[in-house]
Amino acid sequence: MKRKLRMGMVGGGRGAFIGSVHRIAAGLDGTIELVCGAFSSDPERSRASGADLLLPENRVYGDYREMFEREAALPADEKMDFVAIVTPNDQHYRPSKLALEAGFPVMCDKPLCLDMEQAKDLEATVETTGLLFGLTHNYTGYPMVKEARQRVRAGELGKIRRVVAEYPQGWLATRLESTGQKQATWRADPKRSGATCCVGDIGTHAANLTEYVTGLPIEEISAELSTFVDGRLLDDDASVLLRLGEGARGVLWASQIAIDEENGLNLRVYGEKGSLEWHQEEPNTLLLKWPDRPRELVRTGGNYARLSPEALGATRLPAGHPEGYLEGFANLYRSFAAALVDGGEPDCPTVHDGVRGMAFIEATVSSSNENAKWTKIRA
Amino acid sequence: MKRKLRMGMVGGGRGAFIGSVHRIAAGLDGTIELVCGAFSSDPERSRASGADLLLPENRVYGDYREMFEREAALPADEKMDFVAIVTPNDQHYRPSKLALEAGFPVMCDKPLCLDMEQAKDLEATVETTGLLFGLTHNYTGYPMVKEARQRVRAGELGKIRRVVAEYPQGWLATRLESTGQKQATWRADPKRSGATCCVGDIGTHAANLTEYVTGLPIEEISAELSTFVDGRLLDDDASVLLRLGEGARGVLWASQIAIDEENGLNLRVYGEKGSLEWHQEEPNTLLLKWPDRPRELVRTGGNYARLSPEALGATRLPAGHPEGYLEGFANLYRSFAAALVDGGEPDCPTVHDGVRGMAFIEATVSSSNENAKWTKIRA
Amino acid sequence: MKRKLRMGMVGGGRGAFIGSVHRIAAGLDGTIELVCGAFSSDPERSRASGADLLLPENRVYGDYREMFEREAALPADEKMDFVAIVTPNDQHYRPSKLALEAGFPVMCDKPLCLDMEQAKDLEATVETTGLLFGLTHNYTGYPMVKEARQRVRAGELGKIRRVVAEYPQGWLATRLESTGQKQATWRADPKRSGATCCVGDIGTHAANLTEYVTGLPIEEISAELSTFVDGRLLDDDASVLLRLGEGARGVLWASQIAIDEENGLNLRVYGEKGSLEWHQEEPNTLLLKWPDRPRELVRTGGNYARLSPEALGATRLPAGHPEGYLEGFANLYRSFAAALVDGGEPDCPTVHDGVRGMAFIEATVSSSNENAKWTKIRA
Amino acid sequence: MKRKLRMGMVGGGRGAFIGSVHRIAAGLDGTIELVCGAFSSDPERSRASGADLLLPENRVYGDYREMFEREAALPADEKMDFVAIVTPNDQHYRPSKLALEAGFPVMCDKPLCLDMEQAKDLEATVETTGLLFGLTHNYTGYPMVKEARQRVRAGELGKIRRVVAEYPQGWLATRLESTGQKQATWRADPKRSGATCCVGDIGTHAANLTEYVTGLPIEEISAELSTFVDGRLLDDDASVLLRLGEGARGVLWASQIAIDEENGLNLRVYGEKGSLEWHQEEPNTLLLKWPDRPRELVRTGGNYARLSPEALGATRLPAGHPEGYLEGFANLYRSFAAALVDGGEPDCPTVHDGVRGMAFIEATVSSSNENAKWTKIRA
Repeated sequence: MKRKLRMGMVGGGRGAFIGSVHRIAAGLDGTIELVCGAFSSDPERSRASGADLLLPENRVYGDYREMFEREAALPADEKMDFVAIVTPNDQHYRPSKLALEAGFPVMCDKPLCLDMEQAKDLEATVETTGLLFGLTHNYTGYPMVKEARQRVRAGELGKIRRVVAEYPQGWLATRLESTGQKQATWRADPKRSGATCCVGDIGTHAANLTEYVTGLPIEEISAELSTFVDGRLLDDDASVLLRLGEGARGVLWASQIAIDEENGLNLRVYGEKGSLEWHQEEPNTLLLKWPDRPRELVRTGGNYARLSPEALGATRLPAGHPEGYLEGFANLYRSFAAALVDGGEPDCPTVHDGVRGMAFIEATVSSSNENAKWTKIRA
Repeated sequence: MKRKLRMGMVGGGRGAFIGSVHRIAAGLDGTIELVCGAFSSDPERSRASGADLLLPENRVYGDYREMFEREAALPADEKMDFVAIVTPNDQHYRPSKLALEAGFPVMCDKPLCLDMEQAKDLEATVETTGLLFGLTHNYTGYPMVKEARQRVRAGELGKIRRVVAEYPQGWLATRLESTGQKQATWRADPKRSGATCCVGDIGTHAANLTEYVTGLPIEEISAELSTFVDGRLLDDDASVLLRLGEGARGVLWASQIAIDEENGLNLRVYGEKGSLEWHQEEPNTLLLKWPDRPRELVRTGGNYARLSPEALGATRLPAGHPEGYLEGFANLYRSFAAALVDGGEPDCPTVHDGVRGMAFIEATVSSSNENAKWTKIRA
Repeated sequence: MKRKLRMGMVGGGRGAFIGSVHRIAAGLDGTIELVCGAFSSDPERSRASGADLLLPENRVYGDYREMFEREAALPADEKMDFVAIVTPNDQHYRPSKLALEAGFPVMCDKPLCLDMEQAKDLEATVETTGLLFGLTHNYTGYPMVKEARQRVRAGELGKIRRVVAEYPQGWLATRLESTGQKQATWRADPKRSGATCCVGDIGTHAANLTEYVTGLPIEEISAELSTFVDGRLLDDDASVLLRLGEGARGVLWASQIAIDEENGLNLRVYGEKGSLEWHQEEPNTLLLKWPDRPRELVRTGGNYARLSPEALGATRLPAGHPEGYLEGFANLYRSFAAALVDGGEPDCPTVHDGVRGMAFIEATVSSSNENAKWTKIRA
Repeated sequence: MKRKLRMGMVGGGRGAFIGSVHRIAAGLDGTIELVCGAFSSDPERSRASGADLLLPENRVYGDYREMFEREAALPADEKMDFVAIVTPNDQHYRPSKLALEAGFPVMCDKPLCLDMEQAKDLEATVETTGLLFGLTHNYTGYPMVKEARQRVRAGELGKIRRVVAEYPQGWLATRLESTGQKQATWRADPKRSGATCCVGDIGTHAANLTEYVTGLPIEEISAELSTFVDGRLLDDDASVLLRLGEGARGVLWASQIAIDEENGLNLRVYGEKGSLEWHQEEPNTLLLKWPDRPRELVRTGGNYARLSPEALGATRLPAGHPEGYLEGFANLYRSFAAALVDGGEPDCPTVHDGVRGMAFIEATVSSSNENAKWTKIRA
């Protein structure tokens, strides 16, 4: 690239977790720099956060509307090239839509928004504007997830029969939202989080990962959502039976009350010819299983003739130098930035993945409300 | 004990797998010796198997009816003390019933029989005769499974919220039953195996383990059974949502088509205060997880003050000397033998576990036939 | 076999650990039965132990001399076929020699004896009598150890360059021998244990495993023995540089003060074409590493075309049914028994391995006494 | 901080590996920006590399002398604040010395230089100038390494008795340097790499890690270096016996010919009260072992009351979001930058660690040349 891309940010002020992740991820490869932001709905807080980030005062805005307007008015060689939206769920739709309408490509945190109506509207806006829209289902950025997908695509596992997707966490095993902890508070609040807590926050990651790796759509589900913590308003646990394309079957479960599970997203895929297994907490290994030869531990950075270009391209270091969450997240930004500059489709989840995620959320809630009735995913 | 207990055996002739497991397990501690058997429904094969086992010809019988009659007529210091029944599923009910009626305690392989009617009848017969009846849900014999159960009982995990029970295998990923392979042939044959293959053969182990460790009954299930291999007559894969006692929820899945999964029974239990995790393939470790302190790896044979007498009593070797499947299986026999000699309840699954297993089988089949309708376990 | 082999035992009375291991291992496959014993140097204790084991009184002897004499005088179809010697180290030499001279094959615990003179004398006696002599370096009985050896033999790793053999334990991290604990007391007593504690008790296992798997002799060593526990009379820790045949180099270390290491014997072998790794505490997996393809996890009981007959023959159960220490130990007895009945060389360590072990002990002690001077292994 | 620190770089042009690591690590937290560089001894290559990095032409220099001169002449609010030196080993000494003399603090890759004379001279120059000098023994930047060190410091393991430090790699198992591969070529060249290849490149990391965690100096060593690959001029494998302070003993081995070992640095420490274990390839877990309670898996980001401030401060993400090599490396830069701005000692290896590393290198080479004679580390 000839120059660094200039990024603006909505949300991610003091006390936020994911804002800092986005900033590190975007900056990791030296091709994107943060130039402006509306870091909080509270203008004071926004300004303080901008100062923390060493931004010039005139590029720190009191709200995102102001930012889009004023950035749009800046000279082409100065204004931001795209905007990252890293607010709670209820603040994804409007800034995304306005940004697109103001001509700015968007990298948005997941889930896409609060309901299917918003989702479809954003999808239409992306289509109309023709602008890039990335969604940070970041776990697809890991090299070994890409390798898994390529193995399935290449037919090495044969026709897929069964999947098991899990996403256990334990941090909401008590009523953390009543202590004022910021991350818990908005996630457990229906107004800010939407119709679900557990499914929206982590279940959609597991569903997205399943579809990304298998290439099969989740077509129909039967879900039981639970709320184990007294006084909580949304689900903190979900069990889901899956029917996928081409007759594949599966189970997906996610939980926020599984004590001392940290961030245990993992996926197992079983096909007619072989199986694979991947765990987010040890992301640099992909386990392949075969009927007629020993299990293989495929490793990031290994010099195997058979490692896919997609996996190799998502790696920065030689084998044995562990890359983690930030590097995987950065792969989405790198791919998004490359597509902004060079055109083409980024290897990064899009608004369509976001629509599918909203459909997954709505179907699980609806199914659970009807005693786990089989419910189609309509997206 | 003053003398070795004398064991007879029904089934387990040449080519059988589980017969040899029962013989090694029964003999492991030097307190039980095999004295007679009806090893096959084919008298020739029975005699050949008896010769392999170095038994005297007059204690090898052409069928089990003959064995029960003639053993019953032998002097008290010579006749068998109990009988092990290690035949395919369809040959559990009748020999068990006849043995009990002839006055012989029974150790029977699982599942108990073919349907609830048989199961209830056996349960009644056990009650009437007052004889011991053990069922080899052998995985409860592992020391760390006993430790897990004791931790739950002691309230260390608090109220149980969620469980995940898995039993993946891959050996039936192709139509092995059409090759004449003995183990596959009878398991995939509805006449010999009963209404299910996967659920009966391994799903019931997972269900039994779940109830054994949590102490909670599985009350209601929603199941989807699948048959992935063309031409197969029974299920080879099952996904089950669980509702357990005291509001606990869970998922149980089992599969025989999960390529290169070997014998992957495992269990995770999440409570209000902590979590536990156990894997059959690495049985000497129990993982405990806590909200406020590091994960603990509890190990068989460790000299921890807190290791339960139940776990210590199920161990033969010092820490780091791995004990496996046969030792766990032997713990059932050891406990059964001690109860035979000394009275008391053996720490070994009973006919009641067998009845629950049949109820689980019937409920999953029925639920799956009705599109995963929630179905009560009635046992 | 036409009949069970009859085994006598020297040592292994009440309170012993390894005696019970030998009994279970010998009996596991139903081909060997314990018929007599001199279980203690204290005749009372010997008799009490015999009663525990349900042996007839007339086959329980007050000492081993008496046993050899009286057993030798019994009819051929009654007297013991061989004797297992499971006493502390200082009681290996004499009973072994007398047994051989009385015409009884011997299965002896390791190390072979107390010094090279005894070792050479036993070796000569074995040669003179032409009788079988097995030594329970039991870790070579594991299927995956056999697989490792076969892989090296077949040249899959190429010329061996480097090895790392480890045997950490932690049970002697305090002065346990001063508490009267039986296992610690004799091992820490120079009169009963010989010139070393750590090297003799576990270091020799690591050395034997290294030579068994690589097929290369340890030719020269540089050793530093340490005694970390105050008041202890023998070494409880050892670090050894190795020079093996064909220019291979390596490190061997063993320790009894490595807290909460349980029984951590493990071996890594690096050749010109590949590497392997095996851990005793998870014995059913062999890790193979290659320069140009993913790591392979070879598993006991796997149906891989390439698994060696030696490994398959040392396995009793299908994949995923863990076999452990007792099963590995039993493989030595099974092989020894088969050779007794059918002739041929058993796949079981012999008196020659015992001589090499004594040479290893003597060299490490001598090297350590001379500030880790390079010292040849002369055996 | 009020502003980003400005970094210059010596080395790290096209084709280099470690240069890019330094750039990502320095930039990760948004507090350091690369402003200038002399990226290659070939001015053309330097300029091309600067362009790749989007630097203005006037800040890309043809050689480091020029850079130091011209940067020193820039206004205070423009010139670089410090310089990172990321060249091969033979190009550490001179630019480090000149940078210090020109008034620039230095972050230098390891090993410090080529011999003790240079090392002592650099140490003196650092003292004279009073400038900060960091050395990227980056593995001490991992949170769990810091936790390990704090546990030892707090006395939780008691007096240290034994250590095992390993650093196996396999990438030089063939004569890669003869293919023109850049990383291999200079490392295997005595003129550029110094007196060793394996010991200098990775053995010093293992030695540094050992001293960092235990707080004990390696006082005396007995080493055997090997060259297994034909035609190679330097060692590719090393076995070292260690005598540390306070009577501790240990083993350190490193290898570059251990096929498919990737970057397997690991450390085990055994004390009178407990043990610990850490593996670089799975860096977010620290295993603690105790004599009287279960093993603990301490995890990065865990909310344990007992996790040290040092470990918590080295972490950017919540538990279960794996951080890796780059984040650990970045911790050195973050600490170095904070000390530059705020004063105080950075938690980052210094020139003194570099001197100790050179002493370790010289002692191992000398010991190996004298048949593994015990040799003091004099630093």
